[in-house]
Amino acid sequence: MFKKVHVFRVKPGQELLTEITHYCHDHDISSGVVIGIIGSLERAWLNFLMGLPGKYDSVDYPGPLEIVCAQGSVALKNDNSLIVHIHVQLSGQDICRGGHLAEATVFSTAEVAIGELDYQLRRQVDNYTGLNELLG
Amino acid sequence: MFKKVHVFRVKPGQELLTEITHYCHDHDISSGVVIGIIGSLERAWLNFLMGLPGKYDSVDYPGPLEIVCAQGSVALKNDNSLIVHIHVQLSGQDICRGGHLAEATVFSTAEVAIGELDYQLRRQVDNYTGLNELLG
Amino acid sequence: MFKKVHVFRVKPGQELLTEITHYCHDHDISSGVVIGIIGSLERAWLNFLMGLPGKYDSVDYPGPLEIVCAQGSVALKNDNSLIVHIHVQLSGQDICRGGHLAEATVFSTAEVAIGELDYQLRRQVDNYTGLNELLG
Repeated sequence: MFKKVHVFRVKPGQELLTEITHYCHDHDISSGVVIGIIGSLERAWLNFLMGLPGKYDSVDYPGPLEIVCAQGSVALKNDNSLIVHIHVQLSGQDICRGGHLAEATVFSTAEVAIGELDYQLRRQVDNYTGLNELLG
Repeated sequence: MFKKVHVFRVKPGQELLTEITHYCHDHDISSGVVIGIIGSLERAWLNFLMGLPGKYDSVDYPGPLEIVCAQGSVALKNDNSLIVHIHVQLSGQDICRGGHLAEATVFSTAEVAIGELDYQLRRQVDNYTGLNELLG
Repeated sequence: MFKKVHVFRVKPGQELLTEITHYCHDHDISSGVVIGIIGSLERAWLNFLMGLPGKYDSVDYPGPLEIVCAQGSVALKNDNSLIVHIHVQLSGQDICRGGHLAEATVFSTAEVAIGELDYQLRRQVDNYTGLNELLG
């Protein structure tokens, strides 16, 4: 079950992924599910997996764009460092794209919901994909 | 944690946001996370934030369109009135857009999941964004 | 509440919906909310509801495509067989579409989160929509 559900706001001008990681550190969250994020962005960088192992394209999207939704997880690597892995869906009137959240600057707000798990999620490098993949 | 997870259906021809708000009133939900909505719509109005404070464009999308997903929250304002804040992702074969759900008519169904929180979410007008923003 | 939150990985080359259904059978999950799925796909078939009762178009999308997000539910039909109903949002740099997940082959990974419910979700054929709709 979710032992705690955290809902918090990331503010205008802040970098979304950095602030979520800070929040997790500050609240001792090392294992969780990113249930959702809505709001708007001033600018975003999304990654798209093009080939294996680990070949990405990184694309810059100027805003304002709505954060329509986001999902992902909070887990630990072998060295016990935190990985916050998030995919995000963005949309304006003329464009709609989603992908792996690399970096994003908040426009008006980002409302984040994280469900803290009662067991530890872990990741390890997978030689086939070249990425840190979920274990278990 | 989620003290209760509500899953319910909104039916053909009903207005999605109105029915979700009614459900919350009928079930005494004043604080929650909209975990998801899937289904299809006959028509939808989405808002896109264009500038601050609070400058929106409102766009009408004729259906049928799939409700691919939705996220958001249920919270109280200062005057204890309810705010259901939802962003929704829509798609057909030829178009895909998402944004702030202003109004939508259900086509076949809308399956809504709301996680009721064990603490109170609150919103207050933020002078910078001109919008009701999450507190705390 | 969610009596258990399951987080698991579907691996490269596997069919996403089949693996999720297997996971539910193996872990005795007959009632739940699909909280999210992120990852990437090699190929996907999505269905789009075009008319009622139950008139669908099925479209094939070649990958690689990001799984940006997914939502849905696990429920039982009258005959106690399992229905996993999922809508999924896909995106690449040049295309972005979402719909009813009919079939999909995983590219690098699919990270699935399912919240198991403490009550039974049920579906029944609805004569108006021609589809298995949520009861209650």
